[in-house]
Amino acid sequence: MRVPELIQKKRDGGEHDLADLRALVGGYTRGEVPDYQVAAWLMAVFLRGMTPAETALLTRVMAESGDMLDLSALGDTVDKHSTGGVGDKTSLVLGPMLAALGLTVAKMSGRGLAHTGGTIDKLESIPGWRDQLSDEEFTSQARRVGMALVGQSRNLAPADGLLYALRDVTATVDSVPLIASSIMSKKLAAGARTIVLDVKVGAGAFMRTPGDGERLARAMVEIGTHSGRRVRALLTDMDTPLGHMAGNSLEVIEAIDTLRGEGPRDLLDLCLALAEEALMAHGATREDAERRARAVIEDGSALGKFREFVAAQGGDASFVDDTARFDVAPGRAEITADRDGFVAGVDALSVGRAVLALGGGRERKGEAIDHGVGVELVRKPGEAVRAGETVARLYHRGRGVDRALDLVRTGLTFSETAPGVPPLVLGRVQ
Amino acid sequence: MRVPELIQKKRDGGEHDLADLRALVGGYTRGEVPDYQVAAWLMAVFLRGMTPAETALLTRVMAESGDMLDLSALGDTVDKHSTGGVGDKTSLVLGPMLAALGLTVAKMSGRGLAHTGGTIDKLESIPGWRDQLSDEEFTSQARRVGMALVGQSRNLAPADGLLYALRDVTATVDSVPLIASSIMSKKLAAGARTIVLDVKVGAGAFMRTPGDGERLARAMVEIGTHSGRRVRALLTDMDTPLGHMAGNSLEVIEAIDTLRGEGPRDLLDLCLALAEEALMAHGATREDAERRARAVIEDGSALGKFREFVAAQGGDASFVDDTARFDVAPGRAEITADRDGFVAGVDALSVGRAVLALGGGRERKGEAIDHGVGVELVRKPGEAVRAGETVARLYHRGRGVDRALDLVRTGLTFSETAPGVPPLVLGRVQ
Repeated sequence: MRVPELIQKKRDGGEHDLADLRALVGGYTRGEVPDYQVAAWLMAVFLRGMTPAETALLTRVMAESGDMLDLSALGDTVDKHSTGGVGDKTSLVLGPMLAALGLTVAKMSGRGLAHTGGTIDKLESIPGWRDQLSDEEFTSQARRVGMALVGQSRNLAPADGLLYALRDVTATVDSVPLIASSIMSKKLAAGARTIVLDVKVGAGAFMRTPGDGERLARAMVEIGTHSGRRVRALLTDMDTPLGHMAGNSLEVIEAIDTLRGEGPRDLLDLCLALAEEALMAHGATREDAERRARAVIEDGSALGKFREFVAAQGGDASFVDDTARFDVAPGRAEITADRDGFVAGVDALSVGRAVLALGGGRERKGEAIDHGVGVELVRKPGEAVRAGETVARLYHRGRGVDRALDLVRTGLTFSETAPGVPPLVLGRVQ
Repeated sequence: MRVPELIQKKRDGGEHDLADLRALVGGYTRGEVPDYQVAAWLMAVFLRGMTPAETALLTRVMAESGDMLDLSALGDTVDKHSTGGVGDKTSLVLGPMLAALGLTVAKMSGRGLAHTGGTIDKLESIPGWRDQLSDEEFTSQARRVGMALVGQSRNLAPADGLLYALRDVTATVDSVPLIASSIMSKKLAAGARTIVLDVKVGAGAFMRTPGDGERLARAMVEIGTHSGRRVRALLTDMDTPLGHMAGNSLEVIEAIDTLRGEGPRDLLDLCLALAEEALMAHGATREDAERRARAVIEDGSALGKFREFVAAQGGDASFVDDTARFDVAPGRAEITADRDGFVAGVDALSVGRAVLALGGGRERKGEAIDHGVGVELVRKPGEAVRAGETVARLYHRGRGVDRALDLVRTGLTFSETAPGVPPLVLGRVQ
């Protein structure tokens, strides 16, 4: 079938088969199909939709456009994916928890870009920690420790990058099958058999309402079902950054506090919920899963796994036991409340941009970052605050302070009466 | 507004204003907007549609992308457009009729490409006739004779050519607002105040059903209304070529026969109907229009105008009075009926391709053509034929005969019982 006929098929509401999608998306990745044809097809997909089976085939074609990691030697590895978030240090807590629970986390992770942070950047706050492991080191560490994390060295799902760039300039981003296939193509290529998804819902997320979030979660779980992976999703509130800290060293410190059982409630609750999903995906009952997830925090075994993981990848494990050793920027600037009242909301995007302004993130790939700067949300939504009290605090080295203060101020909203705060976990899809 | 936001507006069912369409279509014509963005927008237009006012604005932007002819010195000139047809020599008959009726036809006309013929090519069958006139000659001839026809020397609606090429490869051709704006942009740029449209409906046309044809006709009439032009449309049957002849000299001979009152019934009827629409657009009642249109054939004044027009553009007017002087190819090849029965249908496209095979058309712009070759449909749909009788005849010079015979044979269908033949004029839109 010629490409215009394939576009016409979707335009008229038809369902693509594997050959169609290989011709279109495979052809585009190989440079054989021009971008204007793919652009017209993307708009047809946007307006006509895709069936679950079709979305799964698209995801498969996108995954197969590059390297497909084979982690079968490690048995059933677990991967977690979040649809984006500022101050989201979940991976740093959840990974050691899963390892302590006897599961295996072996994954590639990215660096931060623009207002989003990256797990690799955060871990590099620990002197000596390195993101490069040979294949053999990676496998043997995952088997021994239960957790190994490397930088993105392989060419995973290149079709996704190409399609995303085209969607971005053709108003075809906000489509459930296209978002779901984009996320899941990389997860399928990355090799894990069990995937736990954290689908953020809220003003700052792709998915603005719980209904939209559920549709996306459902689409991703169905892709997993069609692809022989175990996939479960939580819908979580993303109107607010997780925990109190945003910025590389600050987030690692907060993650360690959480592993120690002394972290912020929202972060701990989310990590417990995600760990429970992973356990339930492996057959545990909810009660059993809840009990076991909590136990690895309480008995210190998750913290132990984190120490072991840091040391295995060359990091100075003494930082795990003494977080005062982290290089936190010495400058301070504070935002105080004008009057008595409550914090109503904190816009996550503004906080992410503030970290970027302070030098804690990068505008372009390859730029160096300052691991020690960041933002502390001293008061979180729903908390009362008195006039003159500190609401947020910057950790800086003089760079970008005014801009960061402006951004955080713009992102903060106050109310005179106690605001309703949505629950962290809004729903589950499996 | 940025281009992705304009695409999004149409994607979400919004209505564009003039500034939007200038940014998109004007930008594309100037090379400022890339084809992949326009492709996504075209698909959004295809699936979301356009309001009549919006379609009129798009048409205006397309018309204004190139030269806009100013025929105001000629008052209210009349143009006719057909949505394509094989053996369509209507312009050659209608033009002189309108001139004889006191109206003015002053237009640019095209050459044939692929299976469609061009009026300029047909007129060049008359020795000496030339399609190049200075602006002054063009205006003074139109004023004096009431009819002037020149080749397409100006850059009319270049946006249309660019958009059409993109639509062709992105499955966005069959959209009423896009077809209507494509046709009407060139008509608006060509300057006529009154436009009579012949919208072909049938298996061989863009519009397969009378309902589709009516939607297109309605869209074009509404563009005219929004643009200050008088526009009327006929829906006509296009399952069959008009008249008996296809090929350049053959069609001119048939047109002259028709002007003399001796031509085929379907061609005469269509020309009468189109002339009536032009008269009614200028205020005549139907009865008056019918009487006057018929009179210019019966009293020879339309034939006289054709003679005058040919001579004014350098042609040998003696050909008009003695059509035996035309150079018709001497070779003959015939298709006969296998058995007694009826001609059920003649596929116009096959006949057009047969003329092309014989050398009477061009595959690429600029190729020379043989004006003397062609196809005669001796029997038309609905007519009885006996075994062994001639159904179609080729006029050839040895080239492409077998291929042409195959094509015409494939295009002919027969039935044992008398087939229903649709009326020529299926509807009117004004």
